[in-house]
Amino acid sequence: MSRFWSDVVHGLQPYVPGEQPRMADLVKLNTNESPFGPSPRVLEAVHAEAADSLRLYPDPTAAALREALAAYHHVTPEQVFVGNGSDEVLAHAFAALLKHPAPLLFPDVTYSFYPVYCRLFGITAETVPLDDAMRIRLADYDRPAGAIILPNPNAPTGIALARAEVAALLARHPDKPVVIDEAYVDFGAETAIPLVAEHPNLLVVQTMSKSRALAGLRVGYAIGDAALIEALTRVKDSFNSYPLGRPAQAGAIASLQDEAYFQHNRTVVIENRGRLAAGLAELGFTVLPSAANFVFARHPAHAGAGLAAKLRQQAVLVRHFSGPRVADYLRITVGTGEQVDRLLAALAQILGRGGPPCAG
Amino acid sequence: MSRFWSDVVHGLQPYVPGEQPRMADLVKLNTNESPFGPSPRVLEAVHAEAADSLRLYPDPTAAALREALAAYHHVTPEQVFVGNGSDEVLAHAFAALLKHPAPLLFPDVTYSFYPVYCRLFGITAETVPLDDAMRIRLADYDRPAGAIILPNPNAPTGIALARAEVAALLARHPDKPVVIDEAYVDFGAETAIPLVAEHPNLLVVQTMSKSRALAGLRVGYAIGDAALIEALTRVKDSFNSYPLGRPAQAGAIASLQDEAYFQHNRTVVIENRGRLAAGLAELGFTVLPSAANFVFARHPAHAGAGLAAKLRQQAVLVRHFSGPRVADYLRITVGTGEQVDRLLAALAQILGRGGPPCAG
Repeated sequence: MSRFWSDVVHGLQPYVPGEQPRMADLVKLNTNESPFGPSPRVLEAVHAEAADSLRLYPDPTAAALREALAAYHHVTPEQVFVGNGSDEVLAHAFAALLKHPAPLLFPDVTYSFYPVYCRLFGITAETVPLDDAMRIRLADYDRPAGAIILPNPNAPTGIALARAEVAALLARHPDKPVVIDEAYVDFGAETAIPLVAEHPNLLVVQTMSKSRALAGLRVGYAIGDAALIEALTRVKDSFNSYPLGRPAQAGAIASLQDEAYFQHNRTVVIENRGRLAAGLAELGFTVLPSAANFVFARHPAHAGAGLAAKLRQQAVLVRHFSGPRVADYLRITVGTGEQVDRLLAALAQILGRGGPPCAG
Repeated sequence: MSRFWSDVVHGLQPYVPGEQPRMADLVKLNTNESPFGPSPRVLEAVHAEAADSLRLYPDPTAAALREALAAYHHVTPEQVFVGNGSDEVLAHAFAALLKHPAPLLFPDVTYSFYPVYCRLFGITAETVPLDDAMRIRLADYDRPAGAIILPNPNAPTGIALARAEVAALLARHPDKPVVIDEAYVDFGAETAIPLVAEHPNLLVVQTMSKSRALAGLRVGYAIGDAALIEALTRVKDSFNSYPLGRPAQAGAIASLQDEAYFQHNRTVVIENRGRLAAGLAELGFTVLPSAANFVFARHPAHAGAGLAAKLRQQAVLVRHFSGPRVADYLRITVGTGEQVDRLLAALAQILGRGGPPCAG
């Protein structure tokens, strides 16, 4: 508390990201990073930016990157906005598109940054409960609202909506901005980007942090009608002209140029997710059906917080959220095959199930 | 205009950065970049980040970089905040520290991003006119206000206040936040950082874009009392947990480790500034006394806009601002010796002064 603070600061309760500890031989399954590194072409491109040209400002419009994203997603550059990770893109979307007199709607169990943005920007919000199976029920969004934001797949449940469901939502709410946050879409959900052409109220947000293994480079983007992109650009250009440095712009372009690498790694993650989910089920966990690079699972006899703490003692990091409906669960990132095995072995030991599934 | 926009978007008039054109053989003196590249140690550090570790999020607290900055500036890490260029640091400072019921004060001629931030964050501002010599007159800031922000040296004039003058300002305004924006301080002004210890209302903002030749990497920082830094951190963690990617954090640390390179290049820029100012004076320009890596100069017989356009035809870019008091001027970045010569030769030709100074 300080008399020098602006009023808004007093009420902020910032988002707390998963920890990034320096522990030896760590199995880090707490922040949904890719278990595989970025494409070699990305590394080459970032390396090439380690040059005298770093003295020059980057392109403030990120034109080349926006053109590459437009070509990749079959839209125009005017329909593409880029930012310093999808968190920054989302921040600008909250400020530019989601603040209205009527409340913003989002699920009660979802990305926990959403209520943080609302406090920062003074946005009135209402949460819409997931159903008993932890699914988003779109009919519940038929209520007075100024805007809607949904992750697809949702986080931390990992459960996805079909594109047809998103299309139905858009058709029912043509009068308000709808943001679909697709941070995890590449791991098994259908993107809503093809719906942009018909729905001027749709903004789709994606990130290169997960499926493109670029969390350390900070590149996110949004695709939507040019008028929505203009709103984001106005806010961005009133905040920071150059959010993406030269290495980030170059690396992101290179990532889009290595489709084979991208497809291979996301496929392996999807395979490993199946193995992780099956292993957890064998240990007695209830595992929500995930279309993301993590699973959300709970054990009927062991609270999430205790399991997370015991896993940490074995140098296995997973994410635990306190709060209603989610405190029983663990959110476990899909790692390499070896990491999946180490996580399952550690859990088996914690649960006293060294032997076959029925031994515990 | 779109019905989907939040109200704030309609009133925004974004900052327009200097252009970053792709022209061959360009003499680019329009955005105050360093004419010399970054330290080889920076290039090595950025190169080393072109690695598998890019799959991992960066340290959200940038602890190592904040520690390095604290050691360099003789403060504690709790007195250091880092952001995606000083523009982002300033944005958070406007939101976190400069929004109060009473107006924010800044000069009428200053960094043109300040009024842009005010519109974005809904901050009431009052501009305080420079005196006839385009100097900040500190006595004029003795008026009802919620906060004060000043660049030192001021932009685009380049004129600096002495540290004792800043100290006197702080002593007269202990009740309100005072931000000193030192983007150009390394080129000949005195930093206010030593005043932080005694003035809990002082925030000093610096950037690695200019004197450290890292405009393309996006690193800025603020130093101030821990309570001020906490306000910035709360806002940052409500906006984007990870504003600095891995290459940026590593490169910035490496820059601080090569003091000799930094000192050499800023000294050369200061020398070249003298040469540029003398050459301009010889061509009949009035040149304001600059402590920055640019000069602000006007010709009694030629308007700034026309001169800038004619220079552009010769592939020499300088910055021209429209608006009262500044439209007559050119803001010219200090380049290499060769760039200074090309600029002066181009101006001589435009002014019809190919020969000795008196020939025009």
